[in-house]
This record gives sequence, structure tokens and C-alpha cells, in this order.
Amino acid sequence: MRNLNQDTITQAVIARFAQTPDPRLKEIMTSLVQHLHAFAREVKLTEAEWMAGIQFLTATGQKCDDKRQEFILLSDTLGLSMLTVAMNNDKPAGCTEATVFGPFHVEGAPHYEHGDDVANGASGEPCLVRGRVLGADGKPVANAEVEVWQADADGNYDVQYEGLEHHRARGILHSGADGRFHFKTIVAEAYPIPVDGPVGDMLRATNRHPWRPAHLHFMIKAPGYETLITHVFRDGDPYLDSDAVFGVRQSLVADWVKQADGSYMLDFDFVLNPAHVAAK
Amino acid sequence: MRNLNQDTITQAVIARFAQTPDPRLKEIMTSLVQHLHAFAREVKLTEAEWMAGIQFLTATGQKCDDKRQEFILLSDTLGLSMLTVAMNNDKPAGCTEATVFGPFHVEGAPHYEHGDDVANGASGEPCLVRGRVLGADGKPVANAEVEVWQADADGNYDVQYEGLEHHRARGILHSGADGRFHFKTIVAEAYPIPVDGPVGDMLRATNRHPWRPAHLHFMIKAPGYETLITHVFRDGDPYLDSDAVFGVRQSLVADWVKQADGSYMLDFDFVLNPAHVAAK
Repeated sequence: MRNLNQDTITQAVIARFAQTPDPRLKEIMTSLVQHLHAFAREVKLTEAEWMAGIQFLTATGQKCDDKRQEFILLSDTLGLSMLTVAMNNDKPAGCTEATVFGPFHVEGAPHYEHGDDVANGASGEPCLVRGRVLGADGKPVANAEVEVWQADADGNYDVQYEGLEHHRARGILHSGADGRFHFKTIVAEAYPIPVDGPVGDMLRATNRHPWRPAHLHFMIKAPGYETLITHVFRDGDPYLDSDAVFGVRQSLVADWVKQADGSYMLDFDFVLNPAHVAAK
Repeated sequence: MRNLNQDTITQAVIARFAQTPDPRLKEIMTSLVQHLHAFAREVKLTEAEWMAGIQFLTATGQKCDDKRQEFILLSDTLGLSMLTVAMNNDKPAGCTEATVFGPFHVEGAPHYEHGDDVANGASGEPCLVRGRVLGADGKPVANAEVEVWQADADGNYDVQYEGLEHHRARGILHSGADGRFHFKTIVAEAYPIPVDGPVGDMLRATNRHPWRPAHLHFMIKAPGYETLITHVFRDGDPYLDSDAVFGVRQSLVADWVKQADGSYMLDFDFVLNPAHVAAK
């Protein structure tokens, strides 16, 4: 192993992973090395390009903190997140489809009761959201944990405001015995993903727009069911066909209906996949 | 583009790069997306594994500072660095081969005169290094910039010592009119790459040792020649056949000869590749 060249090095690196105790980790590292090397070989990566890549990845890591996850944003904009979601959430017909988690979920969202205003001061037009959590058999799922988060009218999540001490437009409720929940919030609006970091540099260099169609994030957990991580997208949004993170599914597009008093109403039911079906 | 699935998303992401103005960047992003998705698809990456990958890359970026480059270390240990070096340094026979740059080069190394001790207080057995910088025609290259750096007897580079204010075992000299240079330093010893970060976690999880065979780093620059980035490796080292970063080339292995007074002597000539040959 003293004269590795561009033709022999890949097998030499793979051989070095031969003693990996966990067979799954061995499988992943072997595949990763093969594809990473195949990429470098296919484009005949130059040393300057290699260094640019090192610097890009370093800057991406250093942009991350407890409120910003630039590597998730990179994965999202390269379609890796949606590919992973699609591969792992091949649910039976009738179940609500999953989409990307996104970088703006945080732990510790406040708990709310039905009818509360989760906006909690976030700017935007008033909106009532109501729906049901159901099983695939159509029966209500009681006491499901329904976590919701969204951007405000300026396109920002609460965690994007420096020094904001309380959560806005983010909260956790529980479905009632009839599977129903409802809460007040603000209308979802289209917004650009953050472009003040390396991902923004990448989008500008490749002439890609940073916009996401208007959406409301949901994560729904209930015993006996797969956790559902999804969005509801707002019908009519101009970015539904060019989401910067490739997350739109037609079955998740819904109408925010304008009411007589000028406020909006979203009505959406979520159908959970039983956990035993997921365990393949 | 509203119903992307695991079979259609890759082409949709590639299409999004269609308006990239720089054709080389477009080529690189297209290849990167294909290989990144092929990897995820081949191993059927789970969402938990995806998140573990996000966290690993984030931690790798956050381990970097002005003295530590964990992404270079990751690239080195995955063989990507050596693959890139090999693809880009296919020199004519007779020229000194290149090897990995490594993560411990820093700007601003002190300048020394012939005969000076570049160790500058670094621990280790005394050693004289001498050699010549030559062109492929065998003629001396005068006034070439010869930068050298190495670890000390404890296996650490100067930048690995917290709070050390001056450089040790690192310096820049210039070849004389006859192409010759010589300096005092310490004997190169085998050492483990730093394992207190994510790369160390990866090596432990895969049962890989972190050792590099003893070596002295050189970067040699002269007008009209390709910059040579290489090492000289110490013959007899037990890690020559299992370098943690895959950098060993037999032509770079040399003898550190013990002298009558107990000190060591390394004699090594470097043959530079004319720059016009490199410009393919």
C-alpha cells in the first residue's frame, strides 16, 4: 500500500474499513467512499476545487448553532432530504404523505389548548386551523401530539430573530377524544430560505431562487403510529412547482379559505400510518 | 414538480442547476447530486442515519479553527485527498512525486538561513537535513522556496499546543545558486492524527488505527515550475503500509542515517516539474 494511484486508491480505502464491527456502518462507509471517489474521478476534481469544497463545508458547519442548521439546509437544497424522506415513508394509500423536516424545528415549543393563538405575537393575517388526526381505518386518534411551526408574514421563523426570548408561531397541542384539534395562528406565506450563509452562496452561484411556497409544518406523534413529519402547502402559491427544497406533494396542497370577516380558515385532516406496518 | 418521489427527484434537482452560468460549476453540481443521491439510494439511508450524518458534518465544521482543519482530516482519512493529489500530479518520470498537503500547514512560518535549527525548541533527536532542488534536466534550481514542517517527538505539530506563541519545527529556506539547502531539525517520528474530534470517532467506530508513518513535509516553489507538495517518509517505519491518510509513495521513502555522534542525517533531492508541462 505504498504506491496508491488514482486507479487503486478506492479499493485500498474500502479495505481499510474491513474490520468495522457494525455491518451497517461498514456498508455505509464502503458505499460512501465509492460514490465520493466516483464523483471526484468523474469531474477530475482539481486541487483548487477540492480546497474550495473543504472551505465550503467548513463554513457550512460554522454557520450552524442552536438555532441555525446550515447542513440541513444544504441537504434540503440538494434534494437529499426529500430523497431520504421519500425512501423511508412509502406509506399505504390514504395515509398523509411526509415531507422534509426542514432546519427550523426546535425543541421546547410551548404547549397550547384548543382555540389558543399559537402566533403569540408573530406578524400576519389571522387564521384558524382545524383538523382531525385519524387512523388509516378512519377512526379518530385521541390525544395525539400535534406540533406546528411556521414563518411569519416577513418570512421569518421565531428563531431567526436575534434576541427574541419567547417562541412565536410554534406550539404543541393534543387532539381530543374525537381526534379533533383547532388553534389560531397567522396565514402561511411564501418565504426565501436564509441566504446569508454558504447555501445562499451556492444558490446565487447557480442562479437558483431561494423561495419556498407558503406552508405550515406539522409533526404528529401518537402511540401505535408512525410519527408523521409533513407540511400543508397553500394552494395558488407561485412557488408550488419550484420549491427550493423539493418538498411539495400534491396531496399536501390545501385551500386557505377567506372568511366573511377577512380572516382565513384551513381545514386539514391527517391520517397516520400504524407503526407495525412501518416496521418492515 | 409536485410529486417527486425517490425515482424522480434526482433528475428534478439536476434540472434546477440548468441555469448555472459557470459551465464547470454546473458540471460539478450535476455530478455531485448524482453521486450523493446514488449513495443514499444504494444504502437506503434511514432518516436516523441521515440525521447522524448531518450531526457528524456539523461537528466536523465546528471542530475547525485557524489551527485545526477537521474537514481536511476527514478528506485525508477517506482517501479523497490522495485521490485528488494523484489525479492532478501525474508528473513525468524522474520528477519527485506529490502527496497529501495535510491539515497542519499554516501561513506565516519563520524564515531561516542555511544551517539554522528550524526545530526552535521542539522536542526530538537532532537531525541534519540537506538536499538539492533540481529541474527535470538535473540542473540546480536556485532560490527555490523550501518550506518544511513536521511533528515533534511527542507526535504534535506546534499548532496543536494551546497557547504556544512561536512556531516550532516549521520554517522557510531558499536554495542556493547550486540548488542546495541544509538545516537542522529533529528526527521525524510516527504519530497518530488527532482523534479528539469527529474523525477520531469515525476511526474508532470502524476499528482503524490513526497512525501516520514518520515523515517530513515539504512545499517547494520556484518560478517556472509546478509547486511541489510532498513528504519524505522514514524508511523502516511500521506504518509505511497502513498510513491513516493513504499518503505513502515508495519513491518518497528515505533513510534517516544515524551518525557517529548519535545524531541523524537525511539527504534528499527534489526534482521539480516545469510548469508548462503541467498546463495540459
